[in-house]
Amino acid sequence: MPFSYEYARPALTVDCAVFGLDEQDLQVLLIRRGQEPYEGRWALPGGFVHVDETLDEAALRELEEETGLRKVYLEQLYTFGGIDRDPRERVVTVAYYALVKLSDHKVKAATDAADAAWFDVNDLPELAFDHREIFEVALARLKGKVRYQPIGFELLPRKFTLTQLQRMYETILERKLDKRNFRKKILGMDLLVALDEVQKDVAHRAARLYKFDDRRYRKLVKQGFSFEI
Amino acid sequence: MPFSYEYARPALTVDCAVFGLDEQDLQVLLIRRGQEPYEGRWALPGGFVHVDETLDEAALRELEEETGLRKVYLEQLYTFGGIDRDPRERVVTVAYYALVKLSDHKVKAATDAADAAWFDVNDLPELAFDHREIFEVALARLKGKVRYQPIGFELLPRKFTLTQLQRMYETILERKLDKRNFRKKILGMDLLVALDEVQKDVAHRAARLYKFDDRRYRKLVKQGFSFEI
Repeated sequence: MPFSYEYARPALTVDCAVFGLDEQDLQVLLIRRGQEPYEGRWALPGGFVHVDETLDEAALRELEEETGLRKVYLEQLYTFGGIDRDPRERVVTVAYYALVKLSDHKVKAATDAADAAWFDVNDLPELAFDHREIFEVALARLKGKVRYQPIGFELLPRKFTLTQLQRMYETILERKLDKRNFRKKILGMDLLVALDEVQKDVAHRAARLYKFDDRRYRKLVKQGFSFEI
Repeated sequence: MPFSYEYARPALTVDCAVFGLDEQDLQVLLIRRGQEPYEGRWALPGGFVHVDETLDEAALRELEEETGLRKVYLEQLYTFGGIDRDPRERVVTVAYYALVKLSDHKVKAATDAADAAWFDVNDLPELAFDHREIFEVALARLKGKVRYQPIGFELLPRKFTLTQLQRMYETILERKLDKRNFRKKILGMDLLVALDEVQKDVAHRAARLYKFDDRRYRKLVKQGFSFEI
């Protein structure tokens, strides 16, 4: 035990709720714990913060080590400091949420995690620690934020149809949107670039593809523009 | 050094940006540091998290110890984990922001802090550590949130005039609001109770006093209501 301090210190971890969107559902990435406590139970990926890395670095490192994910959209969520949230000792965890394009990413289990898999957010297994609560806070943040910032695009392929875009909002917000109003609103913000491309490999009439113009968005924000769906 | 661990641990602190509103300005509460590092420099109140208290408890305890403040509106802001933010060693801090009714509170310096005082947010002295950055994030959160949640009432006396209410929003948002529109909007939400009382000790015609109906607000929120100014 080479590290000694005058006062007791909580251990510090990061945990991450990673969201992805498939054709039907919003999904969250869980790892099956390979060791005690809660061995065999599903949990959010995460682990201890090293003394020489920032919190963001720790979150990215743990995600890659446990799930193979890299280059995700990551944002700090909230820090959970309940006294008894870990049966071993006092552990404070800085929680993050991340959004990934499922189309781009393969997930693999690695190191500490015995297994990693995507779960429908409406059908989660029992989670280790207070990870259910962390997940709920992350989901609420996503639902709240997706309407006022264009973070939802992080869940879509880089090129998407307006139908895919609408379905993304409908899935996260859990309600139907009127197609005509939705298109008027989203196209009215002038943040989408219509591409000279259409969908491939679809049975129905191929729809036009669009991409999100991040550079234009940042320019508009500087001028006082507010995104809103 | 009686506390030993297998791996090095960052120290964990809480820091708090406390806002108050006087007749003219938005103010933030600072303490003058009584010890190194940054001895004599102004800083946000805060200190080390004890291993047997939650983060909220630590923030409330430090506030009371350093400034005498109790019963404030407190909310977790963000956790700052830069590698070199403290010259002594790695320190991760969970930052909070708090809102207080200046009318109710007397501030006194205590324990670690040599001095405590309110400063106009537009005229701050140089701050210790990364506290300027923490303050900026707290101020941005306050400005963003005050329009969509009725937290601004935490800054006003329990009984207030509509003019005081409007001035509170104008001060925080740093822009003039149209009086007629403002009153229509705020009274239209039906969250204010008009009291059978008027201002005392004023030279001009005494204005009616109102209070915020928190119970009604919570009931409306459950029915899907969104506050917006």
